[in-house]
Amino acid sequence: MDPFLKAALDEARIGLEEHGIPIGAVLVIDGEIVGRGHNRRIQKRSPILHAEMDCLERAGRLTAADYSRSILYSTLSPCDMCSGAALLYKIPKIIVGENQTFHGPEDYVRSRGIELEIVNDPQCIALMEEFIANHPALWNEDIGLPISNSAP
Amino acid sequence: MDPFLKAALDEARIGLEEHGIPIGAVLVIDGEIVGRGHNRRIQKRSPILHAEMDCLERAGRLTAADYSRSILYSTLSPCDMCSGAALLYKIPKIIVGENQTFHGPEDYVRSRGIELEIVNDPQCIALMEEFIANHPALWNEDIGLPISNSAP
Repeated sequence: MDPFLKAALDEARIGLEEHGIPIGAVLVIDGEIVGRGHNRRIQKRSPILHAEMDCLERAGRLTAADYSRSILYSTLSPCDMCSGAALLYKIPKIIVGENQTFHGPEDYVRSRGIELEIVNDPQCIALMEEFIANHPALWNEDIGLPISNSAP
Repeated sequence: MDPFLKAALDEARIGLEEHGIPIGAVLVIDGEIVGRGHNRRIQKRSPILHAEMDCLERAGRLTAADYSRSILYSTLSPCDMCSGAALLYKIPKIIVGENQTFHGPEDYVRSRGIELEIVNDPQCIALMEEFIANHPALWNEDIGLPISNSAP
């Protein structure tokens, strides 16, 4: 596995150990990880700390020149919010662990000029499938769905 | 002025007093403010705490049913990230203080079913015009532009 996707998956597993939602992300600039994060909805009681947002937050304030050379890795297809953050900062490329258990606005993101590479890694898929099966209400909350609905 | 837009403007002014970027937001459900926030890029060294994000964060974890009855007020047209957060949580309506000093992806947001009402309040416009004139580099950083470029 790509070592940066592996680092994002490691973050997802840290989230699971913390009894959180197992999604992880890393931000890479010039071959180095400058930020790591994982979903912290549970841990911080936060509706905004999806993995990608936590990663960007922990990377700190960067310049447009920094973001223009960056690659965002996420274990899961970024949702509207996280895709929007990538668009705001003009992150040119996102490498996505999988888009089988959730599918963000990928066509729109591509139409705005971001390159999206979908890996569909079996470990990323298995991690989310198990989590969603065990915690459907929590998962629906995280993606803005009513608790009683099925995730897409 | 609409009292909720006034509350958002009060938040923006709190941000200015803190030497931050003067943008404010409130989230209203059933006629009551359930969250207030302002841009805290400077105060928290945060690239994700735009006013709307800070407001959603401070509102805490809400249900989809809560968000479905909410109205988000922001003193400024929401950027890609903040628009994305509203899309994630299916906030049905956003009331925007002004879109003269910055213009988010309003057409896309409307195409996804959110009602956007643009007030273009003179106080909201004046607050941002003065801030941008005095702090152009900081403003460009906040909207993902190179420091040397002009804001749109």
